[in-house]
Amino acid sequence: MIKVGILGATGSVGQRFIQQLQNHPWFKLTELAASERSAGKSYHQAVKWFLDEPMPQSVKNMTVKPCDPTQLDCDLVFSGLDAEVAGEIEENFASHDFAVISNSKNHRFDTDVPLLIPEVNPDHINIINHQRKNRGYKKGFIVTNPNCSAIGLVIALKPLHDAFGVKRVFVTTMQALSGAGYPGVPSLDIIGNVIPFIGGEEPKIETETRKLLGDLKNNTFINSDMILSAHCNRVHVQDGHLECASIEFERKPGASDQEMVEAVKKTLAQFTAEPQKLKLPFAPQNPIHITEEENRPQPRADRNTDKGMAVTIGRIRPCNIFHVRFALLSHNTIRGAAGAAILNAELLYKKGFIG
Amino acid sequence: MIKVGILGATGSVGQRFIQQLQNHPWFKLTELAASERSAGKSYHQAVKWFLDEPMPQSVKNMTVKPCDPTQLDCDLVFSGLDAEVAGEIEENFASHDFAVISNSKNHRFDTDVPLLIPEVNPDHINIINHQRKNRGYKKGFIVTNPNCSAIGLVIALKPLHDAFGVKRVFVTTMQALSGAGYPGVPSLDIIGNVIPFIGGEEPKIETETRKLLGDLKNNTFINSDMILSAHCNRVHVQDGHLECASIEFERKPGASDQEMVEAVKKTLAQFTAEPQKLKLPFAPQNPIHITEEENRPQPRADRNTDKGMAVTIGRIRPCNIFHVRFALLSHNTIRGAAGAAILNAELLYKKGFIG
Amino acid sequence: MIKVGILGATGSVGQRFIQQLQNHPWFKLTELAASERSAGKSYHQAVKWFLDEPMPQSVKNMTVKPCDPTQLDCDLVFSGLDAEVAGEIEENFASHDFAVISNSKNHRFDTDVPLLIPEVNPDHINIINHQRKNRGYKKGFIVTNPNCSAIGLVIALKPLHDAFGVKRVFVTTMQALSGAGYPGVPSLDIIGNVIPFIGGEEPKIETETRKLLGDLKNNTFINSDMILSAHCNRVHVQDGHLECASIEFERKPGASDQEMVEAVKKTLAQFTAEPQKLKLPFAPQNPIHITEEENRPQPRADRNTDKGMAVTIGRIRPCNIFHVRFALLSHNTIRGAAGAAILNAELLYKKGFIG
Amino acid sequence: MIKVGILGATGSVGQRFIQQLQNHPWFKLTELAASERSAGKSYHQAVKWFLDEPMPQSVKNMTVKPCDPTQLDCDLVFSGLDAEVAGEIEENFASHDFAVISNSKNHRFDTDVPLLIPEVNPDHINIINHQRKNRGYKKGFIVTNPNCSAIGLVIALKPLHDAFGVKRVFVTTMQALSGAGYPGVPSLDIIGNVIPFIGGEEPKIETETRKLLGDLKNNTFINSDMILSAHCNRVHVQDGHLECASIEFERKPGASDQEMVEAVKKTLAQFTAEPQKLKLPFAPQNPIHITEEENRPQPRADRNTDKGMAVTIGRIRPCNIFHVRFALLSHNTIRGAAGAAILNAELLYKKGFIG
Repeated sequence: MIKVGILGATGSVGQRFIQQLQNHPWFKLTELAASERSAGKSYHQAVKWFLDEPMPQSVKNMTVKPCDPTQLDCDLVFSGLDAEVAGEIEENFASHDFAVISNSKNHRFDTDVPLLIPEVNPDHINIINHQRKNRGYKKGFIVTNPNCSAIGLVIALKPLHDAFGVKRVFVTTMQALSGAGYPGVPSLDIIGNVIPFIGGEEPKIETETRKLLGDLKNNTFINSDMILSAHCNRVHVQDGHLECASIEFERKPGASDQEMVEAVKKTLAQFTAEPQKLKLPFAPQNPIHITEEENRPQPRADRNTDKGMAVTIGRIRPCNIFHVRFALLSHNTIRGAAGAAILNAELLYKKGFIG
Repeated sequence: MIKVGILGATGSVGQRFIQQLQNHPWFKLTELAASERSAGKSYHQAVKWFLDEPMPQSVKNMTVKPCDPTQLDCDLVFSGLDAEVAGEIEENFASHDFAVISNSKNHRFDTDVPLLIPEVNPDHINIINHQRKNRGYKKGFIVTNPNCSAIGLVIALKPLHDAFGVKRVFVTTMQALSGAGYPGVPSLDIIGNVIPFIGGEEPKIETETRKLLGDLKNNTFINSDMILSAHCNRVHVQDGHLECASIEFERKPGASDQEMVEAVKKTLAQFTAEPQKLKLPFAPQNPIHITEEENRPQPRADRNTDKGMAVTIGRIRPCNIFHVRFALLSHNTIRGAAGAAILNAELLYKKGFIG
Repeated sequence: MIKVGILGATGSVGQRFIQQLQNHPWFKLTELAASERSAGKSYHQAVKWFLDEPMPQSVKNMTVKPCDPTQLDCDLVFSGLDAEVAGEIEENFASHDFAVISNSKNHRFDTDVPLLIPEVNPDHINIINHQRKNRGYKKGFIVTNPNCSAIGLVIALKPLHDAFGVKRVFVTTMQALSGAGYPGVPSLDIIGNVIPFIGGEEPKIETETRKLLGDLKNNTFINSDMILSAHCNRVHVQDGHLECASIEFERKPGASDQEMVEAVKKTLAQFTAEPQKLKLPFAPQNPIHITEEENRPQPRADRNTDKGMAVTIGRIRPCNIFHVRFALLSHNTIRGAAGAAILNAELLYKKGFIG
Repeated sequence: MIKVGILGATGSVGQRFIQQLQNHPWFKLTELAASERSAGKSYHQAVKWFLDEPMPQSVKNMTVKPCDPTQLDCDLVFSGLDAEVAGEIEENFASHDFAVISNSKNHRFDTDVPLLIPEVNPDHINIINHQRKNRGYKKGFIVTNPNCSAIGLVIALKPLHDAFGVKRVFVTTMQALSGAGYPGVPSLDIIGNVIPFIGGEEPKIETETRKLLGDLKNNTFINSDMILSAHCNRVHVQDGHLECASIEFERKPGASDQEMVEAVKKTLAQFTAEPQKLKLPFAPQNPIHITEEENRPQPRADRNTDKGMAVTIGRIRPCNIFHVRFALLSHNTIRGAAGAAILNAELLYKKGFIG
């Protein structure tokens, strides 16, 4: 068993890490780290637990440590740290021989750090040796996962890109409250309301997508030149980001509209990739689940598909302007955060980068 | 004072008609009509009043009549009837010399019926004489207003179309519960949820927009050839449809992106039209209100702008794919239904078609 | 395995029965019955499935039958029928040798029908022989479970009644939307709102409690003379009824207030009864779970305790007027409906009344 | 016109003060004061405005001052300060000759400070001269209004107490989110949920009620000996506290239950008091509004009755344990906070204590 720790263990992503790592077949949670304010307390005392499922018994009395690599006994740390502090702390851990699997945004666009979705760009992990050389890390490294609103969409775009070439994408997101962390959005702001703005979110989707669908050549990331335009909204939903997308391809799939829709549907439904091949524990059986009901996917009904790791797509139909349009749903704190990072760690472990 | 009646007076749009017509300077509400089930009862007994504001005292004891033109004493009827029955009843009233101002969808695409927004296509009312001749109506006629999700958007597109030529539009709507009428959406379907589908809504926006922005020539409607692609969603909001739109113009406004945004903003903010010129009682001072806050418009805060008759637009910014994108908000049961019909009636009255 | 059927299988309680009966160790679901309108269709076609968890694969293609005892092949039927039709249908099934385990209200106060909570009044099942004789049933019988808002409360009152004598109880309920069935409460009625009324609910709690805490002597139910006063409210919650209760005892537990609170807490926490002794599959390990957090129980966090079959109680503190007060939470469609009926069936099976 | 200022002008109660004071016939808003962090900024810059109605034009460019009596030019200050700082600041203003009309809890139980509801205990203002002497204030003084959950209830209890003697009261509150201020309750805590706890709220209702219904004799407050037991809950409502109450009287009103209910209803409906006699601008025409619908009062439909200053009571019916029970609704930030304080100021002005 690989010993793992969590940086930012008391935060909202940290809590999801704890929950998702229960009974993991490869990873054993041995360390919880958080800010100085929490350090020294038992986890139970330090945390305001806000998940609906109860806190696992096993972590209640673990002592929270500071985010100091010299005090943690583990091989791998999952980072759910706030962006204000994540950058430096993560580098510090990597330089102390830890595998750093981060959900934070700080290093996503570093030229030697993979922005990774195992179903999409598993080959990007090959930059790690270059990263180590570049930064003087010996065993350690940093790998990041994308923003919660980008992950679901890019998983859908990947097989379409391979098959038909994705050229341009319009997407409007309706994002869940848990995406803002805790305490996050005040209830008075969102009761009976929608907020048509999420700070920094639109640029994140628009740029991360290009790195994710791009290539790694000679230790350099070459961004895809597809273009994405995003409108991001906060809605009154607990978990699950819903996205409406219209897509233009390089090559129209099928001759008629009906053939096109069938080709797109089949391409999405049949998509499997590296994590499925390797049977990684957190890999969904199929990364994409297709619904045929006319009013799906919906956050409440579809977010937990395949333990929250599958993306659900419905209403696949011709678009008046681009080729196809559809609605897409993914669990923002599982597939979009903690589960994403764990799947990244599983790929890296299986590929020999950890332990 | 013109005597007016309401068809479908117990329904959700009917209730808004009653509320909005209180103290109208030109129109006096004299008749309430509804289905046979309600006919003969006092309004108070017949209705399940669901607006938050109390039922006006003046209608409580009015007797509900059946939707029979021979029993109503008024010149004009507002129709909030269900589409299942609206078609025939409205024709019957028109043939009995009533001005029929309808919010129902049935006659919107009749080749001799105006689909009217007074700020957008006031000249379309000139088909009425043709309609009368065509159908054998003497004094009566039918005029319709568009779907609630189309009205706000088209008011925004109109000045942009005149200035720069609107070519293609992507729009994703997040529509309020009141748009589904009453009882409408079951609470168990929408609590903590979004439904990415509203039956018939996307085709309505896509086609109505083209008639509204089109021309009337030789008693024939020539649709605009602009193209619109819509994704319609139901969200947990009481009133107020929020829409995210991206627009491509024939001619880019301004040389730089900044100039473009400024030109679009100015064009929207300065837009006034026939209802403002005629000082119609329900005309908002400015049809479009611009917000500069980064997180607006929002349903709760902006739906009542100018008594619910103004459209609020914010987040005007360059689009990565088309020219500009923005968020737009309009009150779906005022500007998008009852208020829309009343403004239509005011225009028609002022132009001599009524009374 | 006992073969079981569901009457009202397409309704909201029927759906919960289907879900809860999956993988039951003793009961095998063989029949789905519903109204004539659904009969003959596959379940998948007949139902508007509204639970968040997907419909079990095993029922999708089962054929829905009418509620006719001559067409069903099973020993036991769970009834989730509407009160309008439940009375007669249930009697018809009982007279055709079916064990009828009903969640409907119709027979709850029949003088020869048990109103049963296995933890509270398991001896009431002994009236079944009398019922059979009385009604001319041979193998069949009818047993009912209480209203969803009564069950949780009475489970809490039972051990307190045994220990200290419950004399008077004030209770205010805040009940979930699922308690009203589907489509149930219109979203426009409850968004940002509370409805301080649920038709027929207050009399149900007030009278059912007295039968449940009463005795069965010489085939006659003797109601308890404790008195309860209830205020019932509908709140914006999906599942889980929250209740605030103040209780007056015959005998004050403990000398001081602190001793009293400790005695009440201990009495509740240590309560176990017949279902726990018999290790019935649906029996929670402890019927009552105590929370020490000052702001619990809460519907979202506590409704699923012990698979939704445990009642959670918190904020146990002295009452200014009666002895103690507390907040109580139970899952209204599991512990309060489908799970309740299944536990009833388990007790009856174990006691030899079924099969 | 009396010049007035607001202490804590950027907070949630401060915003309501600004909104409610627009166009007041006697009071002219001349000063806005807040914490050092805001001082010196224009109000528009300093505030995160969160009311749905737009910020009044007149305050946008007012300069926010610190809470320093030497810098404010006005006769009266309304205090919406946080309890952490209100105590000292309010005393400082009173000693600098300001009338301090406070919504904060700090001085509510000072033995020389009135806890005032003009309809309930207007004579309590007579302690002001004693307060001045006691504290060495010359023109200044402090008057407080009760907690938002107490005000509505006590307005209902007052006429009943006068008529029948209120002995014991059970009350369960379902309180709106705005009662917690801004940002207040995190949305993740309350979406689809109820929180059965509000810090410090139950003791406030229980003790404030006794001072409010008590007497002032020889400059000493004699608390009423009625007893109240409260359960306080936070629900998913924007504005409007709903309360379920059961009341025991000294003397049963009427002989039969029906007579009792009628007597209570009549007593409540006919209640008027000092503010109505004096025609104070903020006085509702009738302090209590009775609803006959079986499912009212409701927060959304009833909170704005008489501009949010009337209390709405419905479902008046016999109680199984005490005499009567009913549901009660009042607007927590108008009748329960800003409007309450303004009405207090109006009474004090009319009685010659201000200006």
